[in-house]
Amino acid sequence: MPDHAPDPLRRNERSRQAILDASIALIGELGYDKVSIEAIARRAGVGKQTIYRWWSSKGAVVLEAATHSLDPVVSFPDTGDFAADLRTQLRGILKLIANTGFGSAYRGLIAAGQSDPELLSALFDQIIEPNVQAFGRRAALAQERGELRDDADVQALRDVVYGFVEYRLIHAMPIKPRHIDALLKIAFDGVR
Amino acid sequence: MPDHAPDPLRRNERSRQAILDASIALIGELGYDKVSIEAIARRAGVGKQTIYRWWSSKGAVVLEAATHSLDPVVSFPDTGDFAADLRTQLRGILKLIANTGFGSAYRGLIAAGQSDPELLSALFDQIIEPNVQAFGRRAALAQERGELRDDADVQALRDVVYGFVEYRLIHAMPIKPRHIDALLKIAFDGVR
Repeated sequence: MPDHAPDPLRRNERSRQAILDASIALIGELGYDKVSIEAIARRAGVGKQTIYRWWSSKGAVVLEAATHSLDPVVSFPDTGDFAADLRTQLRGILKLIANTGFGSAYRGLIAAGQSDPELLSALFDQIIEPNVQAFGRRAALAQERGELRDDADVQALRDVVYGFVEYRLIHAMPIKPRHIDALLKIAFDGVR
Repeated sequence: MPDHAPDPLRRNERSRQAILDASIALIGELGYDKVSIEAIARRAGVGKQTIYRWWSSKGAVVLEAATHSLDPVVSFPDTGDFAADLRTQLRGILKLIANTGFGSAYRGLIAAGQSDPELLSALFDQIIEPNVQAFGRRAALAQERGELRDDADVQALRDVVYGFVEYRLIHAMPIKPRHIDALLKIAFDGVR
């Protein structure tokens, strides 16, 4: 009965999803440092070798888990108001941090990356660079339409925005919607 | 001859300075992770026990070394132009990062602090909180004199400024004077 034959691709996708979910959940409970590949495999209901077949290290699987959990919230809406659309995206990231292990996973990756340049560079390529591109496209539209000044330094603006959020995350300071509002007021209206 | 009797306080101060200098220099050469208390003691010309007598851990001695090396550049001048004074302070920090092991030491402390809440909290108390106070005092003067809007959120402005610098440092992105200029233009004039 070919209709009921196991589909190795589908099975792999189900295992992959279980491994990524288990990584974020466990790190949320225990912190990055206390979670092992063995514990992730156990929670995901797969063998340790299944993880090592697809990822070279704990950093690699957690990076994919973090990237995957960011996916649904990281894109920019386009309502014709760049500041409002940024606020929407940032509030999505705040909710992800508040409700899942994403923030702990990201902090663990940043920490591990300080003595592992390959991991830091993979984090840049998989999380930061796609955001640089998406932010740049949304900002270019905003500049065409006058939502953003023509001469605004778009890449510096991006670093201001995510630098603020990452700084508060890394230093274990609370990040609430009012902090995002204060950030965007400064970045869009200036303090002078 | 009491004039030539050894002064234990002075000798301690000389050893302390040698230990702090050795910490920053070695971390600049090898990176935070590869530097041990033993190596710091050897470079400083003191016994390992001298370090353990004064500091409880490698994190503690490196934190004091980082704080001490920031001291000469972290205060704010007051020329009557807050943005220019911030630029001066930030350029001093950039030079410290470019010319010493301070940036590597700070990155190592941030990394270690992600799995050591006591160290992260000590870093906050010894480096961030004094800056919050000094920035707040300079900003209050700036608001009295109209260098800064009355309704500016001073603490959010501080997080914007140092968040930007720390973000680029942590992600191994270059930090040049033109990046500081772009940051201050956004923060003071806004992008809208």
